[in-house]
Amino acid sequence: MSRRVFRELASIEEAKARLAEHFRPKPGGVEVLPLAKALGRVLSRDIEAGMDVPPFDRASMDGYAVLAEDTFGAEENKPVELRVMGRVGAGERPEVDVEKGTAAEISTGAPIPKGANAVIMVEYTVSKNGVVKVYRPVVPGENVMSAGSDIMAGEVVLRKATALTSRETAVAAALGIAEVQVFRRPVVAVISTGNEIVAPGARLEYGKIYDINSQSICDSVRECGGQPVFLGVARDEEEDIKGKIRAGLTSADIVVISGGTSAGVGDLLYRIINDLGSPGMLVHGVAVRPGKPTIIAVVDGKPIFGLPGYPTSALMIFD
Amino acid sequence: MSRRVFRELASIEEAKARLAEHFRPKPGGVEVLPLAKALGRVLSRDIEAGMDVPPFDRASMDGYAVLAEDTFGAEENKPVELRVMGRVGAGERPEVDVEKGTAAEISTGAPIPKGANAVIMVEYTVSKNGVVKVYRPVVPGENVMSAGSDIMAGEVVLRKATALTSRETAVAAALGIAEVQVFRRPVVAVISTGNEIVAPGARLEYGKIYDINSQSICDSVRECGGQPVFLGVARDEEEDIKGKIRAGLTSADIVVISGGTSAGVGDLLYRIINDLGSPGMLVHGVAVRPGKPTIIAVVDGKPIFGLPGYPTSALMIFD
Repeated sequence: MSRRVFRELASIEEAKARLAEHFRPKPGGVEVLPLAKALGRVLSRDIEAGMDVPPFDRASMDGYAVLAEDTFGAEENKPVELRVMGRVGAGERPEVDVEKGTAAEISTGAPIPKGANAVIMVEYTVSKNGVVKVYRPVVPGENVMSAGSDIMAGEVVLRKATALTSRETAVAAALGIAEVQVFRRPVVAVISTGNEIVAPGARLEYGKIYDINSQSICDSVRECGGQPVFLGVARDEEEDIKGKIRAGLTSADIVVISGGTSAGVGDLLYRIINDLGSPGMLVHGVAVRPGKPTIIAVVDGKPIFGLPGYPTSALMIFD
Repeated sequence: MSRRVFRELASIEEAKARLAEHFRPKPGGVEVLPLAKALGRVLSRDIEAGMDVPPFDRASMDGYAVLAEDTFGAEENKPVELRVMGRVGAGERPEVDVEKGTAAEISTGAPIPKGANAVIMVEYTVSKNGVVKVYRPVVPGENVMSAGSDIMAGEVVLRKATALTSRETAVAAALGIAEVQVFRRPVVAVISTGNEIVAPGARLEYGKIYDINSQSICDSVRECGGQPVFLGVARDEEEDIKGKIRAGLTSADIVVISGGTSAGVGDLLYRIINDLGSPGMLVHGVAVRPGKPTIIAVVDGKPIFGLPGYPTSALMIFD
């Protein structure tokens, strides 16, 4: 009956606690990437806005930059007339100021000239001979995107440990950031065990089955942002399994072993892992389905996970 | 007022219908990839199971392969005794048959020997001197995974046009499939326009803003499984924009232009696109926020999308 001893199932909380006691995930270094290659990566430090976005007051419509006060009382039948002092296009530095009784033609995205505090949409104006008739009033700030209204300088816009989607890379682009510092992707060694396991593509003899778990675990690791390294299928023999785990501990940050479904192999893994270093086995069996029998161990500061049949449990453990 | 003529907003349905009339998405070819590189790609044909999974009746527990009928009536105080004829390990071809009054020791995953129809878990047995005492009855099929119970030969397990996640690659692996045929990723040319637009990393003069859309659209394309090619920022000038769109039509499957927020630039794009080929512009303005003013066009059988400020609309259109 001794082979049952280590099969006391741990609750998920207990399993996590035991792991946390012996293993503190630490970033495996950082690297600097061009923003264009950063999608899916995880920030290794906060990004603080070095500037306002937009960096200046901007027109959000085509029309005329005006002093809002000048337009008060304008009506369809009683337009206000303003002298057009010039034009500001997108990307241009305004060469005119807007004073009482004047206006400047302005394009969407162009900087609001000094003096103006609103934009009247071109649709509500008629321009002729250097004079624009304004048929509606605007309030101060109307059709103006204020400097810093999207992002304010000094604001922390992206937090360390954020995974970058197209939303976050857009925020970085808005700030003119061309390179970001991200965590190195964790390298995960993936090992299959089992005398019955054959790699896809090989011929399947009677009694053998194809290796599902390696593919599934490697792709799950990729989906989680890790970098899998498949170390092959180990036979259910001490030396083969031990050699592959040792190789995994040397080359990777995390080792994931799948297979070992039968109690005998579980015991073998148990012994091998404890032989390899301390603290060794922490959990043998987690009380979740399909997590049982799951192995959690730490050797030389690196976690080792042993997974049974299907790899859904891998993701549960990774979280 | 003529510059308003083309700004009748289309509903999303209408925009889709107009596009569908002039453009029928056709796969841009297929390629064969090793399964290990296929994550995220889209199948270009159905995958039919060429075999049962599992391929044979398999033990799902460690124990003894038996004739269930032999165990009927077994109780804690009245075990049934069976002669142990041998042992079947995982991956082994059974060398024994199980006949009435006999059993074979069996490991999880091992093929059920001929004659047996159930597995009694080792926990409910005691074995000594070639005889196993069975303390509980089992029903036929108990602790046996039947051949084909996961996947049956001939079944279509993965459909054409399925995007491969770790679930689907696992199914392919289970069938021993080492290579899959997938669609080539659509190449999407991305162009920014605007005199005020500056690439991230460059110095920002007054009146300029950083190019947000290129980054965001390129990464959205990546997230959708496409392959973006950034063609740079065009100035709001006919020749620059025309040259970049022409380059996009030559090198890519789809062209996406962002910027052109002001009405004047919209008109410019309108003229340029109609100049480039037929049918040209299909939609100018879609009645969704933040989709307006969106351009949908087809030139030489390739779709061109013009997007305004923020790229959320890109995804809405792609769908």
